[in-house]
Amino acid sequence: MEIFDRLESEVRSYCRSWPAVFNEAKGSYLYDEAGHPYLDFFAGAGSLNYGHNHPEIKTKLIEYLMSDAVVHSLDMYSAAKREFLRTFGEVILQPRGLDYKIQFPGPAGNNAVEAALKLARKYTGRETVISFTNAFHGMTLGALAVTGNSMKRGGAGVPLNHAATMPFDNYMDGQTPDLLWLRSLLEDSGSGLDKPAAVIVETVQGEGGINVASPEWLRGLADLCKEYEILLIVDDIQMGCGRTGSFFSFEESGIVPDIVTLSKSISGYGLPMALTLFKRELDVWEPGEHNGTFRGPSPAFVTGTAALDTFWRDDRLEKEIRVKGDIVQAKLREIADEHPELGLQTRGRGLAHGLVFERPEVADSVCEEAFKRGLLVETSGPEDEVVKLLPALTISTGDLERGLDILAEATRAATKAPQPA
Amino acid sequence: MEIFDRLESEVRSYCRSWPAVFNEAKGSYLYDEAGHPYLDFFAGAGSLNYGHNHPEIKTKLIEYLMSDAVVHSLDMYSAAKREFLRTFGEVILQPRGLDYKIQFPGPAGNNAVEAALKLARKYTGRETVISFTNAFHGMTLGALAVTGNSMKRGGAGVPLNHAATMPFDNYMDGQTPDLLWLRSLLEDSGSGLDKPAAVIVETVQGEGGINVASPEWLRGLADLCKEYEILLIVDDIQMGCGRTGSFFSFEESGIVPDIVTLSKSISGYGLPMALTLFKRELDVWEPGEHNGTFRGPSPAFVTGTAALDTFWRDDRLEKEIRVKGDIVQAKLREIADEHPELGLQTRGRGLAHGLVFERPEVADSVCEEAFKRGLLVETSGPEDEVVKLLPALTISTGDLERGLDILAEATRAATKAPQPA
Amino acid sequence: MEIFDRLESEVRSYCRSWPAVFNEAKGSYLYDEAGHPYLDFFAGAGSLNYGHNHPEIKTKLIEYLMSDAVVHSLDMYSAAKREFLRTFGEVILQPRGLDYKIQFPGPAGNNAVEAALKLARKYTGRETVISFTNAFHGMTLGALAVTGNSMKRGGAGVPLNHAATMPFDNYMDGQTPDLLWLRSLLEDSGSGLDKPAAVIVETVQGEGGINVASPEWLRGLADLCKEYEILLIVDDIQMGCGRTGSFFSFEESGIVPDIVTLSKSISGYGLPMALTLFKRELDVWEPGEHNGTFRGPSPAFVTGTAALDTFWRDDRLEKEIRVKGDIVQAKLREIADEHPELGLQTRGRGLAHGLVFERPEVADSVCEEAFKRGLLVETSGPEDEVVKLLPALTISTGDLERGLDILAEATRAATKAPQPA
Amino acid sequence: MEIFDRLESEVRSYCRSWPAVFNEAKGSYLYDEAGHPYLDFFAGAGSLNYGHNHPEIKTKLIEYLMSDAVVHSLDMYSAAKREFLRTFGEVILQPRGLDYKIQFPGPAGNNAVEAALKLARKYTGRETVISFTNAFHGMTLGALAVTGNSMKRGGAGVPLNHAATMPFDNYMDGQTPDLLWLRSLLEDSGSGLDKPAAVIVETVQGEGGINVASPEWLRGLADLCKEYEILLIVDDIQMGCGRTGSFFSFEESGIVPDIVTLSKSISGYGLPMALTLFKRELDVWEPGEHNGTFRGPSPAFVTGTAALDTFWRDDRLEKEIRVKGDIVQAKLREIADEHPELGLQTRGRGLAHGLVFERPEVADSVCEEAFKRGLLVETSGPEDEVVKLLPALTISTGDLERGLDILAEATRAATKAPQPA
Repeated sequence: MEIFDRLESEVRSYCRSWPAVFNEAKGSYLYDEAGHPYLDFFAGAGSLNYGHNHPEIKTKLIEYLMSDAVVHSLDMYSAAKREFLRTFGEVILQPRGLDYKIQFPGPAGNNAVEAALKLARKYTGRETVISFTNAFHGMTLGALAVTGNSMKRGGAGVPLNHAATMPFDNYMDGQTPDLLWLRSLLEDSGSGLDKPAAVIVETVQGEGGINVASPEWLRGLADLCKEYEILLIVDDIQMGCGRTGSFFSFEESGIVPDIVTLSKSISGYGLPMALTLFKRELDVWEPGEHNGTFRGPSPAFVTGTAALDTFWRDDRLEKEIRVKGDIVQAKLREIADEHPELGLQTRGRGLAHGLVFERPEVADSVCEEAFKRGLLVETSGPEDEVVKLLPALTISTGDLERGLDILAEATRAATKAPQPA
Repeated sequence: MEIFDRLESEVRSYCRSWPAVFNEAKGSYLYDEAGHPYLDFFAGAGSLNYGHNHPEIKTKLIEYLMSDAVVHSLDMYSAAKREFLRTFGEVILQPRGLDYKIQFPGPAGNNAVEAALKLARKYTGRETVISFTNAFHGMTLGALAVTGNSMKRGGAGVPLNHAATMPFDNYMDGQTPDLLWLRSLLEDSGSGLDKPAAVIVETVQGEGGINVASPEWLRGLADLCKEYEILLIVDDIQMGCGRTGSFFSFEESGIVPDIVTLSKSISGYGLPMALTLFKRELDVWEPGEHNGTFRGPSPAFVTGTAALDTFWRDDRLEKEIRVKGDIVQAKLREIADEHPELGLQTRGRGLAHGLVFERPEVADSVCEEAFKRGLLVETSGPEDEVVKLLPALTISTGDLERGLDILAEATRAATKAPQPA
Repeated sequence: MEIFDRLESEVRSYCRSWPAVFNEAKGSYLYDEAGHPYLDFFAGAGSLNYGHNHPEIKTKLIEYLMSDAVVHSLDMYSAAKREFLRTFGEVILQPRGLDYKIQFPGPAGNNAVEAALKLARKYTGRETVISFTNAFHGMTLGALAVTGNSMKRGGAGVPLNHAATMPFDNYMDGQTPDLLWLRSLLEDSGSGLDKPAAVIVETVQGEGGINVASPEWLRGLADLCKEYEILLIVDDIQMGCGRTGSFFSFEESGIVPDIVTLSKSISGYGLPMALTLFKRELDVWEPGEHNGTFRGPSPAFVTGTAALDTFWRDDRLEKEIRVKGDIVQAKLREIADEHPELGLQTRGRGLAHGLVFERPEVADSVCEEAFKRGLLVETSGPEDEVVKLLPALTISTGDLERGLDILAEATRAATKAPQPA
Repeated sequence: MEIFDRLESEVRSYCRSWPAVFNEAKGSYLYDEAGHPYLDFFAGAGSLNYGHNHPEIKTKLIEYLMSDAVVHSLDMYSAAKREFLRTFGEVILQPRGLDYKIQFPGPAGNNAVEAALKLARKYTGRETVISFTNAFHGMTLGALAVTGNSMKRGGAGVPLNHAATMPFDNYMDGQTPDLLWLRSLLEDSGSGLDKPAAVIVETVQGEGGINVASPEWLRGLADLCKEYEILLIVDDIQMGCGRTGSFFSFEESGIVPDIVTLSKSISGYGLPMALTLFKRELDVWEPGEHNGTFRGPSPAFVTGTAALDTFWRDDRLEKEIRVKGDIVQAKLREIADEHPELGLQTRGRGLAHGLVFERPEVADSVCEEAFKRGLLVETSGPEDEVVKLLPALTISTGDLERGLDILAEATRAATKAPQPA
């Protein structure tokens, strides 16, 4: 590993929790160079919802590459892009009655967010964007301004402006009515909040600690946006593509966002790709007003199309997620009950779950103990106090239960181990 | 093409100049669905320096994918990443005496720029970044603030701050001594320019119209930065990876930037990948202070390694670029001489060249006529007045000359055609 | 009045409510050119706490001017400034145990606020300043950023940044615990609120509609600031100099702000003058780091000294204010009780009171009817729904009661009058 | 002086150069408490163009105050304001053919500048304001952003945005054509300069070191503004009211600014007062959109009217200024010639002159030696390298020559004195 130390920046992070050099990957397993398997409850932070190297998707990808089909083509028309558009329209948009236009804003989630923010500001002629406590939307300057984490914000090196933070659902433990503060600010012309262009929200905050917004709160938020003509952006980068059960995480609540961002699992294979979706009437972009080199990642179009074909033409995956989600929830409750002294809470929806520790250092130890036992699982939340479970949606029930058992064991080990001073 | 109209955002752009649906690609040729070939003098805006689907790189990529090696792994350690780091160190950094640390800031060039700006601000504790007239550094909010184009800046929807624009080399046609204005501002505590964190510069401005900075100007700039303890960032996203002759575009001038950004051709295959390089002492990042989902694009590591192995272990490619560059330059001069009435200028370095028209609409017609004749070539510059030639570095002499002949013909056709009112 | 129409900007405002040309003034009365008297319940928006042209202060001022003493001297030492400093120290600071340094930041309240914000940011090295809903701190760009009124904010023509708005005491009608939101944001490193430099607060919001902060809330705020090492700025420009009973409006609550701004009545005679006070250890200004032309308004030093000598060397004025405040409150309750259909509320402290109407247009009519009857009284609040009473502190009981009777009558007249559609 | 040390903030500045306590003042003389006279070549930084306590103005002021006329009336109509408006229209605007509306933006120059910037941004809908190297426009956040001095900018504690600095006339010693850089930026849609709302300029930079813009440069600037529909703001706070010869400093050049700011000597007596003038069509303010407490300083209206009546109803003062200006210039040249080793330059217009030293510490010593000899004169310029002469316009020829002789002597003394290491 010497070469990483010598050449790679100190900014590297996950490798510090999991000091192994990974080489192969298949389904829910990663393997280090010695062939040691690791059960993956992290799934590329939600980028591998269908597991590693899914065989059907892989076949399509290799076929495509073998045929010398175009790999890079900026935003030129390509057969691969057309196929993706057609499939996305047919499989995702039409059945849900969503009349969205699709922008390919660049390869990463932050590109999707930056494009969404720019479009919302251009369309409304306003600057302020409302975001929520413990939101995570990306590391580029526009996206970072609507991200909550103070360490990451500090990395900007300039003040982050044109944004205002509001309490996420249940932020103050029910001590104040839902959305009262935001509504009060909007109603009052003397509140000091400049009329916002948009609200950006995750329905479940992944990096923020698996904070789940209730359908009621989301509907209240959508109504408030409509009432004050503020655009509603759902950032579905981590929670979209089935993570919470349905393809879009907001389906359960019945709201229809004005703008939606997708990335991570949209390519189905871990390849960089991102989408910004918006209502047809919002498509006020000038040609080329937002551009970039990697807006036409054809291999990702191919794998993305394959993923939609494989998993979203019927409701089998959705049903499976529900069943597996129940398994996770039950097991997490069991772990919580086993350790009353830890004051554990459980949170989650679909296959995004969190085990919340009072003391962050215990959460950290649990992950460390899990790694020793061959389970990859990470913390999130403002104090890294939440063990976050994001298994592949395609994980087998056996592997799921195996992983949860390791987690239970790791919790026991962590709590028995002498704690750091 | 109806599906593009119906589903893709109006922001799409290149497809408007080249109304074809591309499907296959090989070397310097793209093919539309009917199999019609197009000679590519655009090379993915500099992302395909080694042509489309280079066979050796392709073989490595397919082998990798076939073996179920890890495709997505955030910033975990992987064998593919190690191999890329080792090769980049051995083939690029060591021979050039560059003691840089490497950051994988995300998949796109704008991620590399955003990370560079953040690091420069964090390291210096200052906010202002100097950029140059007609600079292009990307569409995310931090990168856009140091980009010159007014249409793209307008897309931000918020004022773009913490930046100051300075004249690029020869901006005012020799009517003022090099760097006099910047030096005056820095010398004068009453100038109104807050002490900058960094200067960000392209040695040849691609989007800006193939504006070439002289080695003397670059050295003057580097000296000024040193004198005032300002970090020098070279954005080598479009002009790196051999485009100007050497691997880094700044080698000819002898300067050693504090920070370098790379993307586009670094993967060698058109796959999204970006690097931020910086002097060892600048590596003040906290772990995870800048993060993102696609920082470990293993397939791109594999193709990037293959590209370095194939092209940069000896100086054959560098020599070839020089020879081909001379061919381009000679032919462009010929075209200019053929049309004295057009007042044509030629500019360029390595295999980045521009044919500058007085009237932008003529440049536009030339590209249109070229497309009709099977040549892909695009305009750049603030008024789109420059026909920009970025052929693959690996193009055969025959294809190069063929393309230049088409360009000559297109120029003739464009100037004979009745002009738009 | 033609000359005003022709030459004065449309920005003029109070003259629209009170279409008279005023000429003389004495105590609580203004007189128009025809000699018609107006009882003044506005007192220069709190700038004339001791009434118009108070005879003792006037004598001192004229003596000073007659003697050819220095009138303008920037921040040079002058005998008049020394006398003011000595008196302010002796009469105000020492008896209250306040070890403040005094800055003369310029002639207007906004200068005092700008200096306070600059000093707080310089001292802490942070940027964000917390302000409150319906706050008013001034029209210059720094002060405007912490002001709530949307019309006035819109006048900036640029986004107003480096500030965050929080709920003032009782903003959400007791539906949420005091200061819970601010405390939650400060506690949570993922909240999205960058650590603030300072909090700026009015203990009673004058322009905001006579919103009175309770002593408990102010103490809670001060404690929170101390806990998180945030500077507490009390803007006492309108509510200082005895308006609420004590010299500083915060005395009742027992808090000791880090920084205090004073202006308006500090000169005692309506002459432009402002002070920024701060704890000795905060005096980190470089000489001349904040400057300006009118920082040494000697005539105002003289009148200010006279006012302190006349009114603040004993507690007679304080006691009087309390008595008169009770009279006002009783009368306002009476008016409210007389008009149950109007849903009137009363608010206030000392001699700052508000009669709150549900329908702003009624409040407006009341002021209009009062003017017709020779009483000057204005509205405030986000919708101009509050009739604001700021009589001189020195008003006679007879005049006070007379004014309140006119107000009662005006209310009757306004509610009988046909309402605008 | 102990009381100043103990109670006044470290920010105090002029008192450090002139350690005396001033008490009386008359014409061109200030007197300390011991009655020691100081000849004033500073004139309140241009606030006392008619000297201290001018007898005719004083008489009017005392009459006004004695009569219990209104002193403070916000922006209500008053007889004193009407009289000022009428006189300003009649004496200043009409004869010069200027159809300006008048705004009373607050008592200080910075209020006039803030109002000008806000109005320009509101009217144009743009944000950026162009200012010049070594400009000084004030200490409030909006005005500070267009001020050059780095120490004062640093006091803001936040980045200063929405502004861009350009070279003042002759900034680069004739090495570049006038206005070439600004014109280039405006012409080029890729320059990175967002289209400006306004340009703000001083025709002679006082704080910046008596830098004189030529009439040609000013006309070129005005033409450029017209061509690009950018508003031209002349900040005449220090150089207006006759300082350069004519009432407005821009008259000589023949330009007609869109907006003009006045303060300092406009009240004629050193009382705080400021005006923002603008072309009638720019008066797009909403009533009350910019407000403030001290917008109706009646005593200053009275003294300002008296000053206009006394000095501007004929051209005697203008002629005198020219004569006295020649005297100053001749004497400064003499001093420069006497000290060839110092490389002195002289600059100036009207009665604003500068003696420019190569070494700032010599300029400082000259002022110190002058003070010892009873002459008040201060430095300006980015390095405080310019001895700035701003005598009262009404100074007698005898006093003027006396002061210049002291300056000559002080220069001799300073250059003989051992220099600081």
